Amino acid sequence: MIAGWGPVDRSGLTEVEGGVTAAQGFTAAGVISGVKPSGRPDLALLAADEPASAAAVTTTSLTKAPSCTLTERHVADGVAQAVVINAGNANVCTPDGEAHTERLAAATATALGIRHEDVLVMSTGVIGVPLPVERIESAIPAAASALRDDGGGEAAQAMLTTDTCTKQVAVRVTDERGSCVVGGMAKGVGMIEPQMATMLAVLTTDAPVDPVVLRSLLTGAVDETFNRISVDGDTSTSDTVALLASGAVTEPPGIEALGRGVVAVCAELAYAVVSDGEGASRVAAVTVSDAATTRDAEALARAVATSLLVRAAIHGADPNWGRILMAMGTAGVAFDPRRVTVRCAGITVCRFGVATTFDRGQAAAAMNRPEVTIEVLVGAGDAHATVLTCDLTPEYVEFNAEYTT
Amino acid sequence: MIAGWGPVDRSGLTEVEGGVTAAQGFTAAGVISGVKPSGRPDLALLAADEPASAAAVTTTSLTKAPSCTLTERHVADGVAQAVVINAGNANVCTPDGEAHTERLAAATATALGIRHEDVLVMSTGVIGVPLPVERIESAIPAAASALRDDGGGEAAQAMLTTDTCTKQVAVRVTDERGSCVVGGMAKGVGMIEPQMATMLAVLTTDAPVDPVVLRSLLTGAVDETFNRISVDGDTSTSDTVALLASGAVTEPPGIEALGRGVVAVCAELAYAVVSDGEGASRVAAVTVSDAATTRDAEALARAVATSLLVRAAIHGADPNWGRILMAMGTAGVAFDPRRVTVRCAGITVCRFGVATTFDRGQAAAAMNRPEVTIEVLVGAGDAHATVLTCDLTPEYVEFNAEYTT
Repeated sequence: MIAGWGPVDRSGLTEVEGGVTAAQGFTAAGVISGVKPSGRPDLALLAADEPASAAAVTTTSLTKAPSCTLTERHVADGVAQAVVINAGNANVCTPDGEAHTERLAAATATALGIRHEDVLVMSTGVIGVPLPVERIESAIPAAASALRDDGGGEAAQAMLTTDTCTKQVAVRVTDERGSCVVGGMAKGVGMIEPQMATMLAVLTTDAPVDPVVLRSLLTGAVDETFNRISVDGDTSTSDTVALLASGAVTEPPGIEALGRGVVAVCAELAYAVVSDGEGASRVAAVTVSDAATTRDAEALARAVATSLLVRAAIHGADPNWGRILMAMGTAGVAFDPRRVTVRCAGITVCRFGVATTFDRGQAAAAMNRPEVTIEVLVGAGDAHATVLTCDLTPEYVEFNAEYTT
Repeated sequence: MIAGWGPVDRSGLTEVEGGVTAAQGFTAAGVISGVKPSGRPDLALLAADEPASAAAVTTTSLTKAPSCTLTERHVADGVAQAVVINAGNANVCTPDGEAHTERLAAATATALGIRHEDVLVMSTGVIGVPLPVERIESAIPAAASALRDDGGGEAAQAMLTTDTCTKQVAVRVTDERGSCVVGGMAKGVGMIEPQMATMLAVLTTDAPVDPVVLRSLLTGAVDETFNRISVDGDTSTSDTVALLASGAVTEPPGIEALGRGVVAVCAELAYAVVSDGEGASRVAAVTVSDAATTRDAEALARAVATSLLVRAAIHGADPNWGRILMAMGTAGVAFDPRRVTVRCAGITVCRFGVATTFDRGQAAAAMNRPEVTIEVLVGAGDAHATVLTCDLTPEYVEFNAEYTT
């Protein structure tokens, strides 16, 4: 992954196969319910063998999907046993949206023989079109029959919308106390702006974790990863990240190591979402350091990463640091432009607020790569933060002008 | 102009020729200083025959241009006699930026034989490139010699950067007490986001107005016009709007009529800026009504008008009201989606949060025009606000990826 992104400390982590079913105690499946006009798989199901410890964070949007409110309600007791995900229709601003979400949860509970309150629901796709709920309901038994302990890949496929590839990862976490697996899957790739949670992601672990601890692990990891990415500054109505812990392993690692694993999986999935951002041709990690506080660093990095002019310059491989300073000016954070140093792709283009005599051709060549770093030193303290974005391309605009309601 | 934009009350206003020199007591000129590589006019000068009552608002950016700080300082006493505007170089994040701005003011004062403190400076163009101050200084006497009482058009030409056309307007304001003229000129057309002031604009009037009243008229008008437009959500480092009143007419209209004139000129110039927005192919007026407060209405309209996904949909003439509801969810304003009605180009596409059975082809045809209205009724009260934006196009991205630092 790109320099500056993700956890600094990866000790005891090794990547493994299997995504969301890499952890023991989980099965998954992806089937076709017929909601996507393409006829591709569009119904994903994840199930835990037993009721699992669970946590979830959902969108901050006030236009909140019924799936988000149901998931919040069902996860409030810290226990869940299944996540049902339909793609192609977000079931937002639709007649009977709440009732239809309840029906998806009920059908899943019946098919699996589990409690209705232990089912979480995620829906993604078009807003405002009535959900073909019967179609999905009648496909749920098939999904339940298809559950396999190596079904993570199929589930990751079935949750996609405009994504061009699946997004899944798993790591084995080992310390002196024991070992467990943390895995996850996610989908993007438009309406991506970090406000509490972003897009859909499901993580699993086979470590036994108390729900309160699980929630704190998840929110901490989400704050550092999914909440620090931006594709287009638009916050979805349906953003949800859930983490289920089966407790299937008997010698788990300590909570600190587990936390590293959760952050690493979230960071990898968040990176995959940005990298597959609609129309994106490169990923940019904007790191602001030497800031007075982490909050300042994050606000400045976010202002730079969400500026259309900066993102267009990144697309053009243009070391246009004037736009970076301009964007920082809008962050609501006090800083002295005369102390600011900017590096594009490792090349110092501005020192103490004034242009260096850098070689423009060399800088443009260094920026013309799939991964670009933008480093800003503000000279005000020791705090830092990285926000991940992608370039703004004509293809993004064309895609979203053509994409029908 | 597009429905919903600008002052509702235009009584007593009639359009006249002459832009910034339409009002008595002002002369203007536009000359070539050689800063623009194109060799086009790039130095505009506006002068009042006598020290004039003056007010100005400048950018809220913390990366504030030296021209903005000098202008704020020089207008603080409510008096100004000249505005010197150089285009092609913003003189922001440059060595000796403050000193160079002072030199432009000093050279203007000398050439006109007026007080240094009565010169306002505006600079627009590239950020971070040292200002060729000698070149501009040596062109200022030529600009002073070229001042003419019909020079408004030349000045309007010389202040442009990536604009494709001049932006000037003037109106005669008449009521039962008397008459005066209000005129103005502006330049856009990127880094346009309303935060206090937007881009450069100069207004003149020949009414005699106390500086305190003038300031209140200007800030009120800017809040309703320039502060409600957005091209790309990026706030410039150099935004400045200035208004000079010569007092040359002896029978002016009342302050209320004058206020209507100032709002009308600001609205027309702001419309021209959005209409010439980089890459824009159409203008959209987003009006939120039935809101609890004007602040709510403005925040909701702004969220819709600045959403990339909404703006891409407008480009595609797509009545994608789901994206509108999505964007409203991020405005930080409480509202009930089930009470929301949305009209695109006059066609009701969503009523009480649910799709109507509108004809999609008809709606797309109605939206495929140079001016589009998006009306949102939130069902929470009587307040309303309109924010003006343009569509997001592949051309915007291409242009800003290629535009060099």
